[in-house]
Amino acid sequence: MTLKNDRFLRALLRQPVDRTPVWIMRQAGRYLPEYRATRSRAGDFMSLCKNTELACEVTLQPLERFPLDAAILFSDILTIPDAMGLGLYFAEGEGPKFRNPLRTAADIEKLEVINTFSDLGYVTDAVASIRRELNGRVPLIGFSGSPWTLATYMIEGQSSRDFARSKTMLYKQPELLHQLLDKLALSVIDYLNAQIASGAQAVQIFDTWGGVLSHSAYREFSLAYMEKIVKGLTREAEGRQVPVILFTKGGGQWLQSMADTGCHCLGIDWTVDIGTARKQVGDRVALQGNMDPSVLRGTDASIEAEVGAILRSYGSGSGHIFNLGHGITPDIDPKKVKILVDAVRKNSSD
Amino acid sequence: MTLKNDRFLRALLRQPVDRTPVWIMRQAGRYLPEYRATRSRAGDFMSLCKNTELACEVTLQPLERFPLDAAILFSDILTIPDAMGLGLYFAEGEGPKFRNPLRTAADIEKLEVINTFSDLGYVTDAVASIRRELNGRVPLIGFSGSPWTLATYMIEGQSSRDFARSKTMLYKQPELLHQLLDKLALSVIDYLNAQIASGAQAVQIFDTWGGVLSHSAYREFSLAYMEKIVKGLTREAEGRQVPVILFTKGGGQWLQSMADTGCHCLGIDWTVDIGTARKQVGDRVALQGNMDPSVLRGTDASIEAEVGAILRSYGSGSGHIFNLGHGITPDIDPKKVKILVDAVRKNSSD
Repeated sequence: MTLKNDRFLRALLRQPVDRTPVWIMRQAGRYLPEYRATRSRAGDFMSLCKNTELACEVTLQPLERFPLDAAILFSDILTIPDAMGLGLYFAEGEGPKFRNPLRTAADIEKLEVINTFSDLGYVTDAVASIRRELNGRVPLIGFSGSPWTLATYMIEGQSSRDFARSKTMLYKQPELLHQLLDKLALSVIDYLNAQIASGAQAVQIFDTWGGVLSHSAYREFSLAYMEKIVKGLTREAEGRQVPVILFTKGGGQWLQSMADTGCHCLGIDWTVDIGTARKQVGDRVALQGNMDPSVLRGTDASIEAEVGAILRSYGSGSGHIFNLGHGITPDIDPKKVKILVDAVRKNSSD
Repeated sequence: MTLKNDRFLRALLRQPVDRTPVWIMRQAGRYLPEYRATRSRAGDFMSLCKNTELACEVTLQPLERFPLDAAILFSDILTIPDAMGLGLYFAEGEGPKFRNPLRTAADIEKLEVINTFSDLGYVTDAVASIRRELNGRVPLIGFSGSPWTLATYMIEGQSSRDFARSKTMLYKQPELLHQLLDKLALSVIDYLNAQIASGAQAVQIFDTWGGVLSHSAYREFSLAYMEKIVKGLTREAEGRQVPVILFTKGGGQWLQSMADTGCHCLGIDWTVDIGTARKQVGDRVALQGNMDPSVLRGTDASIEAEVGAILRSYGSGSGHIFNLGHGITPDIDPKKVKILVDAVRKNSSD
């Protein structure tokens, strides 16, 4: 099946494009009334992720509203720990939790690297189903949490502010943490390769919590495992390269080391000036980002001004994928997303 | 009265020192059993801040245990909004809250710039009292929250994860936010100058939440006001320069602009490599930091290794004040602080 819009994949490889492609992290999400309707039919969040038909439906919803240049698999970053037996659940208004967090060395030793097709078939089924439904309209992005990010939830048992347990393990039992991260890295490789085999045309690794580490701990406990993943991924599928996007929230100081992993693109948050970032990484990788999602709470004029400033800061030439610097929040009016997408299209094709 | 140990003040001005000075953010705090005892005599946290004798007592407690090179006024960053009438209180285990958060433009318009000696006499009384008690042993640091950081609490009414209300104002009503920040900057100037007049020998501006802003919003809504403060501060007292430390948590990408404000020292968090930071700012300012407080949850050997790595990364010559990259947390064993302080003394005087 021919891909009708390959602007996103071309920009990831820094090949010429007619305009800057755009998609939005968490574009299928609670800010859309049609998402909330589907979600209420599914029941809870994980039931939605596990229902192939409904996961496919919500993945496509934002594409019906906005002329986005990519779709992203609807799923959660914590499916791997769930498949490992930690018992993921979502307490209303409290974020993800695990029934069986990791509490002892034995808990970590007994963890097994996942086999995606047997353990997480609902994810690969969703990928295959979304690809069929997309019918070549835009490329499909697969994704995973980074080993460090998954480890923090598995050790803390839930979201955290200070990562006390995870960091205690890091400084007190670093070998034990390495054992966990190694199993997670092997699992993520299996997981992303299974997504690619099922039809994902690019993949993103979400390192949501790498930015809470010291510069040296980041390299040893987060980046090293992401590099291992990048090197373990299927490089080509369907006759095309499969680009890899690394996104460490709060990683703006570490872009050069991140580019050294061999990934194709770095996701950047809004603390980074994208023009400065481009100079730092030279033309080794593409950049994805980087508007503060809060700008969408502003006026139409302020959204247009921010979009313009980011596009100008990146400058001419390919290699930029417009996005937010983090996921869109539930309070945003979908009309504001339209303003953003239109501003990217208008400003980058002049 | 002669200052017996001026190592900290000398390092702030990049004058020669015999070894690297060390103090610890929140060194008078809940990790110390003697602090918890005094606090229970005082009642709640703000009663402790407002009790001159007890505030003085807890300020000196860590100096009895550890050979630290500076004392810091025991107080809270939210005293200014409290004096402005917002009604600060601390809900058990929940952090600071305001009874009267800012909800309308009228709420902001009616705010008045504080007069420290009449509105916050308990703070200047504490400064004077601590100076007498210190009796020249080590210098006393005064401090304030930054205007942006104070504004976030005043607008949100409490701690926040996504700063939804503050950022909505920033992007929707920037002039209103500027009006608030301007009143806060004038208040902080008055507040810090009153602390200096009462005996503070250096001051630190805590910009705890500057790092959640975009690079351009940081400059416009946080840094610009800190620069205004730096320029408004008393430059000399008791025949000595009064050094100013700027600390933006998460501001590692912005050190050069921060150094341009005319401050004497930048506080840095653990995401920054201090050697890289030193190269970036040239020798324009001193650097304070930057160990992850979580290292204190590790083994003695891991603490000593981290201290050594930070000292080596900074390198030779004055201009480094050893500290954590954020406040010490209540769960830390005071013995670990001893390991840290001893390691700084041992490793930096070789």
